Amino acid sequence: MVKNFTGRKTSFIPFRRTKPGIGPTNHTTSNGRISANRHLTQFAFGACSSGTLVHFSDPTATVQLNVFTYDENSFTEGKYKKVDDIPSVPLTPMVPMLWIDVDGVHQHDIIAQIGARYEIHALVQTDITTTEQRTKLDVFDDALFLVCKLIFRDIGRTGHTVIEQISFYIKDNILITFQETPKDLFDSIKNRIRQGKGRIRKSKIDYLFYSLVDVIVDHYMDVLDTMGTKVESIDNQLMKTLKRDTLESIYDMKRDMLYLRAIISPLKEIIIKLQKEEETQIMQESTNIYLKDLFDHVVQVNDSIDTYREMLASFIDFYMMLNSNAMNEVVKTLTIISTIFIPLTFISGVYGMNFQHMPELTYKYGYYIVLGVMASLAILMLSCFKRKRWF
Amino acid sequence: MVKNFTGRKTSFIPFRRTKPGIGPTNHTTSNGRISANRHLTQFAFGACSSGTLVHFSDPTATVQLNVFTYDENSFTEGKYKKVDDIPSVPLTPMVPMLWIDVDGVHQHDIIAQIGARYEIHALVQTDITTTEQRTKLDVFDDALFLVCKLIFRDIGRTGHTVIEQISFYIKDNILITFQETPKDLFDSIKNRIRQGKGRIRKSKIDYLFYSLVDVIVDHYMDVLDTMGTKVESIDNQLMKTLKRDTLESIYDMKRDMLYLRAIISPLKEIIIKLQKEEETQIMQESTNIYLKDLFDHVVQVNDSIDTYREMLASFIDFYMMLNSNAMNEVVKTLTIISTIFIPLTFISGVYGMNFQHMPELTYKYGYYIVLGVMASLAILMLSCFKRKRWF
Amino acid sequence: MVKNFTGRKTSFIPFRRTKPGIGPTNHTTSNGRISANRHLTQFAFGACSSGTLVHFSDPTATVQLNVFTYDENSFTEGKYKKVDDIPSVPLTPMVPMLWIDVDGVHQHDIIAQIGARYEIHALVQTDITTTEQRTKLDVFDDALFLVCKLIFRDIGRTGHTVIEQISFYIKDNILITFQETPKDLFDSIKNRIRQGKGRIRKSKIDYLFYSLVDVIVDHYMDVLDTMGTKVESIDNQLMKTLKRDTLESIYDMKRDMLYLRAIISPLKEIIIKLQKEEETQIMQESTNIYLKDLFDHVVQVNDSIDTYREMLASFIDFYMMLNSNAMNEVVKTLTIISTIFIPLTFISGVYGMNFQHMPELTYKYGYYIVLGVMASLAILMLSCFKRKRWF
Amino acid sequence: MVKNFTGRKTSFIPFRRTKPGIGPTNHTTSNGRISANRHLTQFAFGACSSGTLVHFSDPTATVQLNVFTYDENSFTEGKYKKVDDIPSVPLTPMVPMLWIDVDGVHQHDIIAQIGARYEIHALVQTDITTTEQRTKLDVFDDALFLVCKLIFRDIGRTGHTVIEQISFYIKDNILITFQETPKDLFDSIKNRIRQGKGRIRKSKIDYLFYSLVDVIVDHYMDVLDTMGTKVESIDNQLMKTLKRDTLESIYDMKRDMLYLRAIISPLKEIIIKLQKEEETQIMQESTNIYLKDLFDHVVQVNDSIDTYREMLASFIDFYMMLNSNAMNEVVKTLTIISTIFIPLTFISGVYGMNFQHMPELTYKYGYYIVLGVMASLAILMLSCFKRKRWF
Amino acid sequence: MVKNFTGRKTSFIPFRRTKPGIGPTNHTTSNGRISANRHLTQFAFGACSSGTLVHFSDPTATVQLNVFTYDENSFTEGKYKKVDDIPSVPLTPMVPMLWIDVDGVHQHDIIAQIGARYEIHALVQTDITTTEQRTKLDVFDDALFLVCKLIFRDIGRTGHTVIEQISFYIKDNILITFQETPKDLFDSIKNRIRQGKGRIRKSKIDYLFYSLVDVIVDHYMDVLDTMGTKVESIDNQLMKTLKRDTLESIYDMKRDMLYLRAIISPLKEIIIKLQKEEETQIMQESTNIYLKDLFDHVVQVNDSIDTYREMLASFIDFYMMLNSNAMNEVVKTLTIISTIFIPLTFISGVYGMNFQHMPELTYKYGYYIVLGVMASLAILMLSCFKRKRWF
Repeated sequence: MVKNFTGRKTSFIPFRRTKPGIGPTNHTTSNGRISANRHLTQFAFGACSSGTLVHFSDPTATVQLNVFTYDENSFTEGKYKKVDDIPSVPLTPMVPMLWIDVDGVHQHDIIAQIGARYEIHALVQTDITTTEQRTKLDVFDDALFLVCKLIFRDIGRTGHTVIEQISFYIKDNILITFQETPKDLFDSIKNRIRQGKGRIRKSKIDYLFYSLVDVIVDHYMDVLDTMGTKVESIDNQLMKTLKRDTLESIYDMKRDMLYLRAIISPLKEIIIKLQKEEETQIMQESTNIYLKDLFDHVVQVNDSIDTYREMLASFIDFYMMLNSNAMNEVVKTLTIISTIFIPLTFISGVYGMNFQHMPELTYKYGYYIVLGVMASLAILMLSCFKRKRWF
Repeated sequence: MVKNFTGRKTSFIPFRRTKPGIGPTNHTTSNGRISANRHLTQFAFGACSSGTLVHFSDPTATVQLNVFTYDENSFTEGKYKKVDDIPSVPLTPMVPMLWIDVDGVHQHDIIAQIGARYEIHALVQTDITTTEQRTKLDVFDDALFLVCKLIFRDIGRTGHTVIEQISFYIKDNILITFQETPKDLFDSIKNRIRQGKGRIRKSKIDYLFYSLVDVIVDHYMDVLDTMGTKVESIDNQLMKTLKRDTLESIYDMKRDMLYLRAIISPLKEIIIKLQKEEETQIMQESTNIYLKDLFDHVVQVNDSIDTYREMLASFIDFYMMLNSNAMNEVVKTLTIISTIFIPLTFISGVYGMNFQHMPELTYKYGYYIVLGVMASLAILMLSCFKRKRWF
Repeated sequence: MVKNFTGRKTSFIPFRRTKPGIGPTNHTTSNGRISANRHLTQFAFGACSSGTLVHFSDPTATVQLNVFTYDENSFTEGKYKKVDDIPSVPLTPMVPMLWIDVDGVHQHDIIAQIGARYEIHALVQTDITTTEQRTKLDVFDDALFLVCKLIFRDIGRTGHTVIEQISFYIKDNILITFQETPKDLFDSIKNRIRQGKGRIRKSKIDYLFYSLVDVIVDHYMDVLDTMGTKVESIDNQLMKTLKRDTLESIYDMKRDMLYLRAIISPLKEIIIKLQKEEETQIMQESTNIYLKDLFDHVVQVNDSIDTYREMLASFIDFYMMLNSNAMNEVVKTLTIISTIFIPLTFISGVYGMNFQHMPELTYKYGYYIVLGVMASLAILMLSCFKRKRWF
Repeated sequence: MVKNFTGRKTSFIPFRRTKPGIGPTNHTTSNGRISANRHLTQFAFGACSSGTLVHFSDPTATVQLNVFTYDENSFTEGKYKKVDDIPSVPLTPMVPMLWIDVDGVHQHDIIAQIGARYEIHALVQTDITTTEQRTKLDVFDDALFLVCKLIFRDIGRTGHTVIEQISFYIKDNILITFQETPKDLFDSIKNRIRQGKGRIRKSKIDYLFYSLVDVIVDHYMDVLDTMGTKVESIDNQLMKTLKRDTLESIYDMKRDMLYLRAIISPLKEIIIKLQKEEETQIMQESTNIYLKDLFDHVVQVNDSIDTYREMLASFIDFYMMLNSNAMNEVVKTLTIISTIFIPLTFISGVYGMNFQHMPELTYKYGYYIVLGVMASLAILMLSCFKRKRWF
Repeated sequence: MVKNFTGRKTSFIPFRRTKPGIGPTNHTTSNGRISANRHLTQFAFGACSSGTLVHFSDPTATVQLNVFTYDENSFTEGKYKKVDDIPSVPLTPMVPMLWIDVDGVHQHDIIAQIGARYEIHALVQTDITTTEQRTKLDVFDDALFLVCKLIFRDIGRTGHTVIEQISFYIKDNILITFQETPKDLFDSIKNRIRQGKGRIRKSKIDYLFYSLVDVIVDHYMDVLDTMGTKVESIDNQLMKTLKRDTLESIYDMKRDMLYLRAIISPLKEIIIKLQKEEETQIMQESTNIYLKDLFDHVVQVNDSIDTYREMLASFIDFYMMLNSNAMNEVVKTLTIISTIFIPLTFISGVYGMNFQHMPELTYKYGYYIVLGVMASLAILMLSCFKRKRWF
């Protein structure tokens, strides 16, 4: 049912899939659909990511299951390798909250087991394991499913800006998050659960969901801030030199922006949708004010991307103008030197001819007269250039 | 009534029609309209298809009629050459389902016979035989008619990406599909009917209809994935070399994208229309969730096309910038060499003149002085260029 | 009341009017408005028509009145020169239909007489005689008035694509069409009336109206098809040569497209308006399906125009890129030749100087050494260019 | 209360205001607001007007008050210098109509007196005297206030296209128009009142209002027609020569279009607003048909501006392409001549060297051999250029 | 709870924040959210501000609290350093009004004290102290919170155009304004309160709020007016010279416009929102007419920005065209000189060769013949250039 999908390693084409053939070899899913090429065009987004945004995935790593159960008064935490090891918490109506943080989606059997245990639809399972999803929210009768991208600067490990997919599945008082690799992004949230700080322990599962998305958006802001520094440095370079490096930087930034916009912009509508969502009874009204705040931040991120895009577009215009201007200067120099000296060289060439009968050659002051003529010609030319404002 | 329309073979202008004259020679259709030039402007789409997308059609091939009748429990299959050979299935209300897959639309008399037997409107028959249709859905009182394009990589036969038109006519429990040539695109669906796998046999005819459109969209995704690889390879080449080939690739891709967008983008609205369609009672509510899924994929395809278009547009910008940059470098080289050597050549020319009275020529160290002057002039020029940051 | 407006002959500025002065000499129409410059800005559309679209009008030609009266069973036809000659058909409610086809709108008194007889509003009469109208539909209490453009290839007479204005005035069971010149465009419709073929004779006057507009749209398609062939031929030329002719063709096509779009695009909304029009009770519900069909064709025409416009825009981009590329090649050639030979020429110039004391000149192998130095310098330069990938 | 605002004379920056300082010296209006810089950004529109559109204003001229009182049967006319001189017409309900045409808005005390007498709000008075207003309509409880621009060719006086502001204030049966200078633009309307021609005398004041706006729109059309002639002449020049003048014309036209669009485009919405306006009971339903007509003309004007703008944009594209093409030709010529003669000159330079041991020089046919080598080299080069299609 | 945020001094990156690390060191606010990077992407706006717009902030300055209490009859004024010093005015329902003008937001403890005393939400306090906010209006149950930017020419101190953030918090009859530095921008309003001039003292607190925003918009207009002068001066320079300075000016202006648009454009929607705002019962209906007026001015400002942006975009187009034109002229000059003299120099080089057997050299008139040939060649070339219209 679930395809045997291996992780991706190449950093240049992060969203490139291992290409399944189209045709009779296609696997059919449980509901009989051909699913092999369901995620193909996601590559479109991959194509526009530059080398500055990388994607790591280790297909041999074991999947970790971090489980938190908490209510206002108590809290338990556990790390498991198998789905069956997760203790079967007696889920009294809405208490306690259960958060399963799955680190790794490449072992499809584990995802399938989780799916079976928590009644996740086969279609959703496919979406979780397919890491080329568009950012999207699916609203089911009693569950919410959100797929989006994590973008963060992995300072500790590589220094690169890393992109991963994260999926959220919420149902009743259970939240399951699926990350591609284990990382410490949600440590602050985990600590808050452990220490009972803030509102998390006192709130329903939707507040935890909000808090995690909030962390993701915060990291978008951080990444965009780094981009902003780059845009600024290009801005400073642009008027000084016309290096090919600048050109490549602009080009890379432009692709990154195209990519980030594709990832982040759907979040705006998704948050509006979440605010209005009532049917599933997952989102509480008290969380609405936080979603509003979150929406503000997503709008800010989108505005920043748009501003950067406009800046980069104007960089291109000005690079062209500056280049055209520089070329003009260079060609003027060439023209001035050439138009002065080529005629003079011709004159000297004439008197370098070896004809036996050239009366000028025998004149006593011939040489000086010719030098004089040349000098006046040069001065004439120069004044002519000056009139045309070539200096 | 139906025009004698021959197939098209040329791969360069796939959607070019054999031009019927306008005027008194126009044929009138059964409802008295001039129909000869009904499909003219479809050429617009043909004009923007590059040589990479080809269209095959063999006007001498015989038309094949593949007939499937099935319900949950039984299934029969037959291949016929004549419409009259199709067994007259007793159509008890809605059971069994009947799928007639017509391979070939160039023999207009066969289309006319099918039209007569299954009460297809003359206008729709014209649309089926005219293979330059825009992607469109017509909703009749008791029938649905969808025209769209098949785009698939014909790996077996030619290796080209092939474009064909496919029409779907659904009425009660009958689905008739009209393809231009026989091919194995729908074999997986046929196998599912034969083997009774999945939901097809258990569902109404609308699920079969959905499954076929789903296969078509899957192939769109596959074709776009191939395009993505090309865009990516252009992306890699662009910064390295400025070959004319790259230019032509960009140009071809741009045309292909224009073409694909024109074909695929209307599908978005069509699927929304299908979801809301209630009057004909063909589309079941249970199929709605699959249409939603289909809609997601069409949106993905459209997003990919848009992303590629933006990428290609930015390629053009950067090609221009890189070219302008390269030109600048070349002209700078020319200018530096010229402005250094042209004045020096002039000086040597002066002392190559044959005047009898040139005092410098008789000086013992004249030659060395002149060489020294030339050297200092060259150094002066070079330092001048350095100050202008020409290196 | 109606201005003395002469026909236009110039083919370059087809929509140029004879300019009436503004000021106290302005004529006032019956309702006291200044009408002299009512049609001025229509020139805007004229300005963007290229020389390929021409407009013929012979102000001395006599106006022809072709009158058809028909119902399902009978039909009479007559050609008249004077309005009074038209037999006063007893118009029993809605039977028979009356179609007056007026060929020529330059004789304003005839238009005025028709206006008086069939109660056409003075404003509408002005619109009929002013042949620079925008495409528009006016809905009156009991009448419809449509102005649009005829665009057709006049194969017989001139081979040019001709543009003329046509107005339709419908009221009760009367349709009056006003063309600028007599031509055989509607002959097929006329024949259908004469022969009682198709639906025309059986239908109300609105079906005749639809049929005529349908013929007009068919001719739009035909003209656009011809344009498509041109776009395609530019497409083929573009990658091969960079002729100035191609440039001018692109330019002309672009203007034509601008012009055609301005003429044709309003039709889309007009047909939608006609479909919903109920007040005048002219448009029958049975005609609605044909209007829908007509709408499809107008959409196709508009789509084609948009596609061609995008194609032409991309031609410009690529022309610039190709030109820039070609320039780069040319300048590289110049630079390579110059940077190799200018220094060599300088060296030969040095040893062409006539100083008495030049020790190298007396060395036995001096000549061969210099030749060797020159050769190594040339090879050095060439290898340098190769490293920069100039070949 | 009303600022002492002097007229503007400069023709280059027509909408430049005399800059009042910002800060504690600001005057406060009657309602306590800082109003000194209320009209600052209007300069934006002024900045984009070219030298072809001028603005005249003579601050020393006396203000003229032309007063018309009329009903269907009678009519009186008077010219006054002072507001108090205007006879106090007994305004029986809606009869007679009163039109006060104020020529000159620079004497703020007169505007203030009119404002006091006819109860014009202080804010509106400021708008009247501030001649940098955006085109706008203010709807008050019982009054309408329209500000727009007069654009007309002042044939008699200067031959320039002149821009002035005109304000309309309508309340009950009174219409007050405020023009910047006296001119004969509305003479035709005045004559119609005098002679009782047309509908004016029979209608309410709103018809007079419509008639005046209609005259203004007619003059827009006239001005645009003149622009059209210019666009057309640029169109004709463009393909022939690449003069700098053409460039400047395009530039000027572009600015003019930007300016005209800013002035005229708001009128579209204003007329729609007027058609729907019911609260003030000023606009009669019978006038609606004329407003519809007026709306058509404004749409035409806007369409023309858009068309011209697109034309001008395509001029720029083609100017660039033609220039690039011309440059290519020039550089090719240079390259051909240089690459042929520079190597030949080098060869002749070699045999111009003065080495004592140059064996070739003593060969009898050496000269002819060298000439032959040179000729073959030149032919070789030429054939090479031909292969690259440089001719 | 409130971060220790230091002021910014650098004029180049005015909106750059001191970058807080992301991760476990993040401070959590009272409601447990990570807030350190809440304002990150605001830098986007900072990135697009040019050096012409500066931002001053002195983190060592003491915060001033200017307190005004007033009603129609009385008024008191006080300056305090500590929040506790503000006299606790007995706030009888809605009388008197209280305006606290806080000059300086860098001392977060003072903001926190004000927040505590006047019940300002912690989120709002963070917004006040974060000076990189987007222009926004928050509507609470009983309070309004507006953040916008002050842009003013600081004539007295630095002559620069200064940008600061200002926040308004209104609740019941209290208005608290938070400015970054003390300045005399609102002195005119303060004087009006002191002198009881105009409507302020007689109105509710919302009129004071309107008056302050009105002053801000007035200063936008003033700043844009200054920009307009610059645009105009670029416009004048553009056709005369092609200086690099002009290029940089255009570039700077473009960035400024991008920046100003981002700051000012949200105000339009905010004012509309304020007009409709009813829930908080802060905005009185009588103030609506003033908001309408304010809206008009904001629209004007936005229109100006759009016009300037279009102007600047057309400057770039024309700069490119002019540059391309100039280049063409320069290259033509080079080509003419080169193509005339290079062949002539070659000829003179031929007769400068030292072959022993060169019969032409001994002809008596050889020299004159060669001179003649050279002259005719030059004339031939010149006429050739003339035919190609190179002069």
